Amino acid sequence: MNRGAIVHSGILPDVYPENRRLLSFRLRTGREDAAECVLVIYSRTTPDRIRKFRMQCALRDGEADYYSVEVPFSKVARYQKYYFEIKGRDGEHLYLTTWGLQEKTPEDGFFEFLYANGKDCLRIPEWAPGQVYYQIFPDRFRNGCTENDPPDCAAWGSVPDREHFMGGDLQGILEKLDYLAALGIQCLYLTPIFKGDFNHKYATTDYFEIDPCFGSKEEFTSLVEGCHERGIRILLDGVFNHCGTHFAPFMDLLEKQEESSYKDWFFVTEYPVRLSHHSYECVGAYKWMPKLNTANCEVRKFILEVMDYWLGNFHIDGWRLDVADEVDGSVWTEVRTVLKEKYPDCLLLGETWGSGRTLMQGNRMDSIMNYIFRDSVRDFFARESIDALQLDCRLNHMLSAYSTEQQQALYNPLDSHDTERFLYQCREDKRKLKLAAAFQFVFPGAPAIYYGDEIGLTGANDPDCRGAFCWEKEKQDEDLYDWYSRLIRLRREEKALCRGSFTAVLCDGRMYGFSRMCEEDELYVLLNAENTESEAVLPVLRPGTYTILFSGTEDAEKMEITAEWADGIHKQGVNADRMDCQGRIRLTAGAWSILVIKKKKEERGYEG
Amino acid sequence: MNRGAIVHSGILPDVYPENRRLLSFRLRTGREDAAECVLVIYSRTTPDRIRKFRMQCALRDGEADYYSVEVPFSKVARYQKYYFEIKGRDGEHLYLTTWGLQEKTPEDGFFEFLYANGKDCLRIPEWAPGQVYYQIFPDRFRNGCTENDPPDCAAWGSVPDREHFMGGDLQGILEKLDYLAALGIQCLYLTPIFKGDFNHKYATTDYFEIDPCFGSKEEFTSLVEGCHERGIRILLDGVFNHCGTHFAPFMDLLEKQEESSYKDWFFVTEYPVRLSHHSYECVGAYKWMPKLNTANCEVRKFILEVMDYWLGNFHIDGWRLDVADEVDGSVWTEVRTVLKEKYPDCLLLGETWGSGRTLMQGNRMDSIMNYIFRDSVRDFFARESIDALQLDCRLNHMLSAYSTEQQQALYNPLDSHDTERFLYQCREDKRKLKLAAAFQFVFPGAPAIYYGDEIGLTGANDPDCRGAFCWEKEKQDEDLYDWYSRLIRLRREEKALCRGSFTAVLCDGRMYGFSRMCEEDELYVLLNAENTESEAVLPVLRPGTYTILFSGTEDAEKMEITAEWADGIHKQGVNADRMDCQGRIRLTAGAWSILVIKKKKEERGYEG
Repeated sequence: MNRGAIVHSGILPDVYPENRRLLSFRLRTGREDAAECVLVIYSRTTPDRIRKFRMQCALRDGEADYYSVEVPFSKVARYQKYYFEIKGRDGEHLYLTTWGLQEKTPEDGFFEFLYANGKDCLRIPEWAPGQVYYQIFPDRFRNGCTENDPPDCAAWGSVPDREHFMGGDLQGILEKLDYLAALGIQCLYLTPIFKGDFNHKYATTDYFEIDPCFGSKEEFTSLVEGCHERGIRILLDGVFNHCGTHFAPFMDLLEKQEESSYKDWFFVTEYPVRLSHHSYECVGAYKWMPKLNTANCEVRKFILEVMDYWLGNFHIDGWRLDVADEVDGSVWTEVRTVLKEKYPDCLLLGETWGSGRTLMQGNRMDSIMNYIFRDSVRDFFARESIDALQLDCRLNHMLSAYSTEQQQALYNPLDSHDTERFLYQCREDKRKLKLAAAFQFVFPGAPAIYYGDEIGLTGANDPDCRGAFCWEKEKQDEDLYDWYSRLIRLRREEKALCRGSFTAVLCDGRMYGFSRMCEEDELYVLLNAENTESEAVLPVLRPGTYTILFSGTEDAEKMEITAEWADGIHKQGVNADRMDCQGRIRLTAGAWSILVIKKKKEERGYEG
Repeated sequence: MNRGAIVHSGILPDVYPENRRLLSFRLRTGREDAAECVLVIYSRTTPDRIRKFRMQCALRDGEADYYSVEVPFSKVARYQKYYFEIKGRDGEHLYLTTWGLQEKTPEDGFFEFLYANGKDCLRIPEWAPGQVYYQIFPDRFRNGCTENDPPDCAAWGSVPDREHFMGGDLQGILEKLDYLAALGIQCLYLTPIFKGDFNHKYATTDYFEIDPCFGSKEEFTSLVEGCHERGIRILLDGVFNHCGTHFAPFMDLLEKQEESSYKDWFFVTEYPVRLSHHSYECVGAYKWMPKLNTANCEVRKFILEVMDYWLGNFHIDGWRLDVADEVDGSVWTEVRTVLKEKYPDCLLLGETWGSGRTLMQGNRMDSIMNYIFRDSVRDFFARESIDALQLDCRLNHMLSAYSTEQQQALYNPLDSHDTERFLYQCREDKRKLKLAAAFQFVFPGAPAIYYGDEIGLTGANDPDCRGAFCWEKEKQDEDLYDWYSRLIRLRREEKALCRGSFTAVLCDGRMYGFSRMCEEDELYVLLNAENTESEAVLPVLRPGTYTILFSGTEDAEKMEITAEWADGIHKQGVNADRMDCQGRIRLTAGAWSILVIKKKKEERGYEG
C-alpha cells in the first residue's frame, strides 16, 4: 500500500461534529490503493462497546482517495477514541493512530474526539447549500431613479470605463425583483452600496449610510422587503480590510496627524501622513484604499457594529466579506462568535481567490467565493486546455479541502466583477457558456450568476465586465435566458443536485459523465464538450428506465431512456472500483451538449 | 516519485507568518523520496521578481519527509503567490499548486499568502520555548501552615487515597521556592488552588477565591512575588469545562430549578434537576462535576473575567487549561483574542491527551500538554516495546503536527497527577527513569517535571501518583536529584537544546543518536537504552574535537573527544541523505547511558 499517502489530520474536514449527535470522519489514502477503510471507534467510558464503520470513498483526486463516514450517537458525542484500519488491494493491513501507521492492531495511541460542543458544530445556515446566487454591481444593473444620478453620468449601455457612473441604483433593483424572481434566483449579492469612493464603492467612506447615488435607507428597506416577499435572500458586501480616504477616521488622521485619536486605526509608516502609499499600508500601492488595522480593538468593535447594524435593522441575510483573506483571521472568529449568536441564520461568505481552507478553518466562514471552481471550468469549457479526467481530478482536489456541508455551500461563480465575462473567455461561443453554466447547476455547491450573463452580456476584465444590463428585450439573448431559467428550475427541483454525492462515471477525452445521488434519487449527467457529435456509453448503477430531466431541447424532457444490462463492461472505467455499474446507456451526444437523467422510482424494486 | 504523499495544506503549520516580515513554509513528501524541494514565490505586485528557496528536510517520520523554509521580507509580507517544485530521486519533476500536482511549470493556480496581519502571527511568549516546568499538586507538596489544614488530615507521607487531605498549601510552596530555584526550574504549574471540592480541587466552587486549605490571597501574592524574584514564572490551572456542585450558579439551579437565572449555564437534561448525571451533562457520569455550557455568553464572560482577574491582580504568567479539548474551541479563540491584547506575554497551555492540532489551530493555545511525547518515551525507555527507529518515527510524526515555534514550546512530561509515576512505569529501575529524564532535557520542547520525580517519588496512577513530597533529606534520592539538577543546568546553558534542529543520526536497536543544532552550536546526543554496554559509532558532520557536556559521570564533563574522518561510512545510515556526516566517533556506550557532546568552536575554521 502507499503508506505515505495515508493521512488523517485530526481537524476539520477530517473530523468534526455535524451536530451534537453526529460526527463525520475522513481518511486520505493513495488513489485506488485501499480495498477497504474501516473506522474503529469506542467511547472511553464503554471500552468494550467497539463500533466499526466501513468508510466510503467520497472523493478522488489525481493522487488520493478520501474515505468518509458519518457516525450517529444516541446522546451527545463525547469521549470517543478511534483509529483506522486500512486494507490494501495488495493484501497489506495497516492501522493508523495518532502515533502514525502500524501493522498490528493498536492497543493505544488512539485518536480522540472529546466533546461535541454546540459552537464547534458546523453551523452553515440551513438555506445556504445549493442556493442559486445572483451578483449585482449596483451602478450597472438598472437605473430606477434618475434624480440620484451622479453628475456627468455616462449613457446607459455605453462602453464602461473605470471612472464614470451609469446611474444604476436600489430603486432599479427593486423594480426588477420580479424579473429576478421569475428567473428563479434565491439569493442576491450586491457589491458595495455604502457611501464610498469610485463607481465600485469598494473604498467605503461611511459604513452606516447608503451611497446617495444608490438611494436611501428607506429604499433599501423596501428592497430587502421586496426580496423577502419573493423568497429571495440578500447579502451585502462588507469591505473591512480597508476604507476610502474620505472615511472620517482617515480624514481625522490626515488632519490631526499624530494627535489623531484614530491613528491606530491604520498602519502609519511615516509622519507626517500624506495621501501616499508611502505613508500607510494600503491595498497594494493604491493610496485611495488605506488598510484598516483590524488588530485594533476599536476597529474590531466598529466592524462588529457595522455588521450588526445592517443585520439587525435592515434584516439582510448575511455578508459577503471583501478580501476576507487579507484581514486578520481572528476578526472573523470574533465576528462569527458574536453574530451567529444573534443571527444564527446569517451567512458569512468570504472572498478568496485560492483555497478556502484558511477562511473556513475553525468554522470562521460559512462559504467562500470559489474561484478555484471557476479556474477549472474555464480551463475545461472555455480554454479547452484540460480533459475530463483532469477536470475531475482538479474538482475533487478542490472539494477535498472542505467538509461535505461546506462543499454544498461553496459560492461557485463562472465570473464576477473582477474577471472577464465567461462568454468573453469563450470568445463569444455561446455553446461553451451554455454548457459551463449547465455544469455550474449540476455540480455540488451554490451556482452564482453574475448579472447579465443570462442575457448574453460579455466583456473583458474590469472595466469591460461591468457593463450596463441591457433591458431592451429584443437585444437580450432569449435563448440564453431560457437556458438559465430552465437550469435554475432543474436545480431547485432536484434535491440530489444540491445535496447529493458526486462521482465521475465517465472521463473520456472531453466527454464527462458523473452521478449525483441522495437517499431517494439517482441522477446522471453526461457532458460532451467537443465540437463534434460522439457516441457515448454512460455507465449507470442498474439497468432500467431513466427519465430525461434536462437536455439541449426542452422537447426531450420527461422522455424516457433505457439502460441495458452491461455487467462488467465498466470494470476498467473511471471509478469502476467505487461504483459497480451494471447498466449502460448508449447515446449519441451532440457537440457541446448536456444530458441529465434520473432513475425512475418505480423501477427500484427491480434491483438485486 | 510518491505523488500521493505530497501535501501542502495551505494552513498552519504548512504556511504561517512567524512575524510580519517572516513567513514559514512546509511541504510533505514521501519518506526519502525527493531529491530537492524548492519553494517558488513572488509578489503579485512584482510578478517578474520570482524568488526560489531550497527547502530543508526538517522532520522525517515513518512515511513522510517534511521540508521547510523561512522566507524573509524587507517589508510586511503580503500578496505572495507560490508553488512547489519537487525533484524526485527517480528524476521525476513535479509541481504542486492549489490545483494539485502537475508535470509542467505552473502558470496559474498558485497558492497564495495574502497578508501577514499582526494577530495572525505566531505569538507564543518569548519565554516559553524550552522552559523547564515543575508541576505541583498543592495538597501534597509541602505543609507550610498547619492552621489551614482541613479536619482529619492524613499523616504527611501516608498512603494517598482519593478522599483524604494531607495539608499541603501555598505557604509550603513559598517556603520551598529556594529549593525549586536551586534545582533550576523556570516555571511552576500548580494544579487548582481555587476553592473547590475534593483534594484535587478540580471541582471548582469559587473561581475568585483561594481554597482556604491552601491559604489566602495574601499568601498567593507572596508566592507569585517569591517566584518572580527568583526568575520563576507561575501558571494556574483553570477548570472551565465544568465546576463543582457547590458552585453558586449550580446551587442556584438546584434550588430554583427552571426559575434559576443560571439554568442556561449548564446542560440540563431533565427537570426537576437532581444531583445526578441523569439531570445534566457532566464529566463522564460523574455527577460531582457538572459541565458548564460554554456556548452561553454569560459563561464565556465569566471565564474571561476569572482569567483576567488572576492575570491582572496577581500577575500570574499564564493558564494551564484543564481538559481544554472538551471545551468549545471558540472559547479559546475569544480568550486568546482578549487576553493576549492585555497580556501579550501570558501563556495559554491546554490539556489534551492527543495531538494538539485541534487546540493549536488558529493560534488558540500557545502550547499543550504533550502526552504523545510521554507515550513514546514510556514505550521506549520504560516498556522497551519499541526500538530507536520506531521512537524516532513516532517523535517526528508527533512534531509534524506543529510549527517549529510550537514544537519548542510543547509541555513535555514524563508523568503527571493523572498517570503512573514514571519510576513506577520503569518498575523502579532508576536507570530507565534517569535516561528518560535526560531525554526530556535534550529533546525539543519544554521538559516538565512532576513534583518529586527528582527525589525518587514513585506510585501507580491516581491516587498513588499523588503522594506527599518527602522533605527528609536522608530519604530523598540524592543521586537522582543531582541528575535532574545537572540536566536542568545543561538545558539552560545550551541554546541548541531549546531552539536547535533535531535530526537522528543513529538508530540501531536501542541505541539512539541525534543532533541538535542552532546557528552557532552543534550538539550530538547518544543514548544507549539497553542493559548491556555496546560499541557505537556516532556519525557527526565533521571530524574534529568535541567537548563532553553531559554523561553518566560528572567527572567526564568538559573532557574532549575526537571525531575521525569517515567519509562515506554514514551513507547508508538513518538520515544519511539529510546530513552528510564526514566524521565519526567510536565509543563504548554503557548500559542505560547518555552522552551529550558539542563541537568545539575554534575548530570551525577547519571545515571545508
